[in-house]
Amino acid sequence: MRTYLDCYPCFVRQALSAARMAGADDGVQRRVVLGVLDLLRALPDGATPPEVAYRVHALVRAEAGHGDPYAAVKESTTRAALALLPRLTELVASSADPFATAVRVSIAGNVIDFGVGEEVPDLWATVERVLAAPLDTRDLELLRGALDGADHVLFLADNAGETVFDRVLVETLATTHAVPVRYAVKGGPVLNDATRDDAAAAGLPGCATVVDTGSDAPGTTPDLCSPEFRACYEAAPVVVAKGQANYETLSEAGPRVFCLLQVKCPVIARDVGVPVGSVVVRQSGPR
Amino acid sequence: MRTYLDCYPCFVRQALSAARMAGADDGVQRRVVLGVLDLLRALPDGATPPEVAYRVHALVRAEAGHGDPYAAVKESTTRAALALLPRLTELVASSADPFATAVRVSIAGNVIDFGVGEEVPDLWATVERVLAAPLDTRDLELLRGALDGADHVLFLADNAGETVFDRVLVETLATTHAVPVRYAVKGGPVLNDATRDDAAAAGLPGCATVVDTGSDAPGTTPDLCSPEFRACYEAAPVVVAKGQANYETLSEAGPRVFCLLQVKCPVIARDVGVPVGSVVVRQSGPR
Repeated sequence: MRTYLDCYPCFVRQALSAARMAGADDGVQRRVVLGVLDLLRALPDGATPPEVAYRVHALVRAEAGHGDPYAAVKESTTRAALALLPRLTELVASSADPFATAVRVSIAGNVIDFGVGEEVPDLWATVERVLAAPLDTRDLELLRGALDGADHVLFLADNAGETVFDRVLVETLATTHAVPVRYAVKGGPVLNDATRDDAAAAGLPGCATVVDTGSDAPGTTPDLCSPEFRACYEAAPVVVAKGQANYETLSEAGPRVFCLLQVKCPVIARDVGVPVGSVVVRQSGPR
Repeated sequence: MRTYLDCYPCFVRQALSAARMAGADDGVQRRVVLGVLDLLRALPDGATPPEVAYRVHALVRAEAGHGDPYAAVKESTTRAALALLPRLTELVASSADPFATAVRVSIAGNVIDFGVGEEVPDLWATVERVLAAPLDTRDLELLRGALDGADHVLFLADNAGETVFDRVLVETLATTHAVPVRYAVKGGPVLNDATRDDAAAAGLPGCATVVDTGSDAPGTTPDLCSPEFRACYEAAPVVVAKGQANYETLSEAGPRVFCLLQVKCPVIARDVGVPVGSVVVRQSGPR
């Protein structure tokens, strides 16, 4: 998905928010914002929003002299999500359709997104909302079917804390599809995206092979990833791609990719063709 | 009030929204956004948000070749407000404290603000919310007292449509204080701020002397206004200043100025020292 003009104010807001999380003083905050204005002024044609965010957050980290501005919120949201884990597991276990329920639980976790704002809505209320939300069952059934015949699945993680909700789906797949999972996190910190440390804190190594993209770009842009990850990505018979940034980079990556997300911004809502707040399972188009 | 870094994304969003209201095509929208990035990059120290908005919206009108991008929403919100006028008048007439109720009604109208977003909340629900909201009665009583001894009052209008709610207060003042009102609108279109035409559409000429600032700057920055208006402003024993932009330009303009507004953004909330959503009557500081 291309970067719309509507995304420009969002990048400025996001950079300022990240600079403050990094403890930057007023002068540094100002350098960050002016730097982002310059960066947006000179944007190359066709850059996707995650590619722009990649540059924006590299600028913030460099100006603020902080390697991981979101470290504290990643830790606290992971802790909050882990506190819900027993209830989430029980929810799936007692469901008439554990696979569908686990998919919804994983999508519920996508509400933890500091790219969108600085407040995370109540997690349990979000689970209840997402469980009750309308969902395109056609694409959900296509995913169920694709997993039936797959020897493994590549799961592209999004945010720390959301990882715990993903773990519920990964653990469920072991029962419903007996399919091994490669769980891919970012190669370095960007926004509140999960890294290996965040996946470990959420307990993913106990149920999946954790790999990383070799890159600190949000979303999944194969050209920005390591050769090892590209090989892993190309080899995957099914790819589960979590969150808006993965949708933005992979919505046209072909039918083996399934995007699972909550729609949190009007630009993506328009692209997907659903209202803001929607819960989406969407098989990717062409390729 | 100075322009905070938090205001930068808001200006970009506002400019894009205005360009679209003006019917600008993708190319023009892009020129507008890049122009605003340049403008923000080169901002002089100490510019208030309304001074920046003045430049931003002049740029939009020039690039889009449209003299009044908000003409349609100004007309429709005025119409919607006029439909409520009988109920608003009855509300004040049946109140135990018509002055206080009319002040709240006027503040309720401040919800019509296309600088903040593109949707206007339900007007009647807003009236009920503002009537029930906590309000600093100390400053309300200071305003009541100042009006008691005044030979006239200068009312600085904010937005079209809000004008109808102001009319209720202006008509009430004729009864409660027998004080003549000069109702000041903008000298030309900017955002959805009221001009002479908008005041006329709301029926203000029937109850007040309508004057204009001689300027199309939002808020009230005397240096940007006509000499006639500056004289009118200097001569006023009491000034009622509506909305965020007037607060941003006049919050330190001295104790004869009373700002009446709804707080719709976190930056102003921090400056006033109240939560977003607050209903405010605030006597201005020093001078």
